[in-house]
Amino acid sequence: MRLARIAHPEGVAFVSVEGDGADATVAEIADHPFGTPNFTGRRWPLADVRLLAPILPTKIIAVGRNYADHAQEMGNEVPAEPMIFLKPSTTVIGPNAAIRLPKASSRVDFEGELAVVIGQPVKNVPASRAAQAVLGYTIANDVSARDLQKSDGQWGRAKGFDTFCPLGPWIETQVDPSDLALRSEVDGQVKQDARTSALVHKIPDLIEFISSVMTLLPGDTILTGTPAGVGPITDGQQVSITIEGIGTLTNPVQNA
Amino acid sequence: MRLARIAHPEGVAFVSVEGDGADATVAEIADHPFGTPNFTGRRWPLADVRLLAPILPTKIIAVGRNYADHAQEMGNEVPAEPMIFLKPSTTVIGPNAAIRLPKASSRVDFEGELAVVIGQPVKNVPASRAAQAVLGYTIANDVSARDLQKSDGQWGRAKGFDTFCPLGPWIETQVDPSDLALRSEVDGQVKQDARTSALVHKIPDLIEFISSVMTLLPGDTILTGTPAGVGPITDGQQVSITIEGIGTLTNPVQNA
Repeated sequence: MRLARIAHPEGVAFVSVEGDGADATVAEIADHPFGTPNFTGRRWPLADVRLLAPILPTKIIAVGRNYADHAQEMGNEVPAEPMIFLKPSTTVIGPNAAIRLPKASSRVDFEGELAVVIGQPVKNVPASRAAQAVLGYTIANDVSARDLQKSDGQWGRAKGFDTFCPLGPWIETQVDPSDLALRSEVDGQVKQDARTSALVHKIPDLIEFISSVMTLLPGDTILTGTPAGVGPITDGQQVSITIEGIGTLTNPVQNA
Repeated sequence: MRLARIAHPEGVAFVSVEGDGADATVAEIADHPFGTPNFTGRRWPLADVRLLAPILPTKIIAVGRNYADHAQEMGNEVPAEPMIFLKPSTTVIGPNAAIRLPKASSRVDFEGELAVVIGQPVKNVPASRAAQAVLGYTIANDVSARDLQKSDGQWGRAKGFDTFCPLGPWIETQVDPSDLALRSEVDGQVKQDARTSALVHKIPDLIEFISSVMTLLPGDTILTGTPAGVGPITDGQQVSITIEGIGTLTNPVQNA
């Protein structure tokens, strides 16, 4: 199932996206998409609604240096244990919403990432049972003010500006995330071209590790790291991240 | 006004705490404490209810190295701009709840801090108007796994374990935070003894800086930094942080 969140003529709702292309429709879900969703019976053509971020997480946990080729391009070692940091929930925007470049930075980069959306509260879940904690998978752009990331030491500011976490277009609940093609493009030019099989710390291990630290709640989102090829985005550009079996997340870039 | 959150015989509520000592009572607030609170008319003796964390923030923004004497004791420079990092909302516990020492760390420290609770949504608020964004002030313990903080680089894990952000006992809405005595004790022994006037980056400047990065929402909490004197806490100990004009936040320490 592809779970999305939409703005429709009368409000906001979770939906299931069915079909593809011009014929795609969305079926409204009552309340929330966790557990077994209940459908209200209302439907709209996908073309008539606006996709929002598919979830508003209570927290976003991101993993640094989790592809060897990206760690290398930044001049870093791959850490023996996952290196985690947090992005504030106010960074989240949906598909086609603008990434705003803050005046405080002169170098903002895109980072295409596979994101894991948690489906139920878990603490201390072993890797062998981690899949049960997952609602599904979506696409994230871990937008980063690279200059501030280097100068600040801690990444709370550099990765925490409003609009710095595009999520979407939806949460795919059926896909096997272990070996998916990930491709990032800026204005149609391919910048990142990788497979999730190259993740240093795999998704079940990430869930075990993170849930040994903090309780994960439904909707909490793990950004699993970015492969080599990150680079700057500037006013007027458009960045698209495609993950096989999920879809494409596209956002325009504008000065704040 | 002292705003608290309590568990009472029939549920959970925001309250105003009135009076002191054995005669103190709590008056129930309808819904939430932002804006002008409405009172339901229900009251309990403070002794008959349990204080919870006074707020559940959507985000916790903490400021590193914001007292020169603490930066010095850790061998660090005071940063020219505030160094911010995030603690997950799942770290929050209330007064008298146990700080749990995770097995992954062999050195967990207390850090007594003045905390600012935001009262209304703000973005890009100048320091001169920052006070309008504040609901009030409370006490925080920025509990930190010091060994992991050093080894991990990013502090998402070291400062992100469940129970690592005691908050309380309540939010004082009337106090001037600019020069308050702050004292931390472990088992009654004074470890930190400072004044908030020694904050390197003052509260209005912190609010201006942080709100230039991210939208602050009602309940969001800023931990303003800790003075010199931090040190380890171990199973069976009790840590108390007292801030003049606010109160005392006490938590026992237990192995997880």
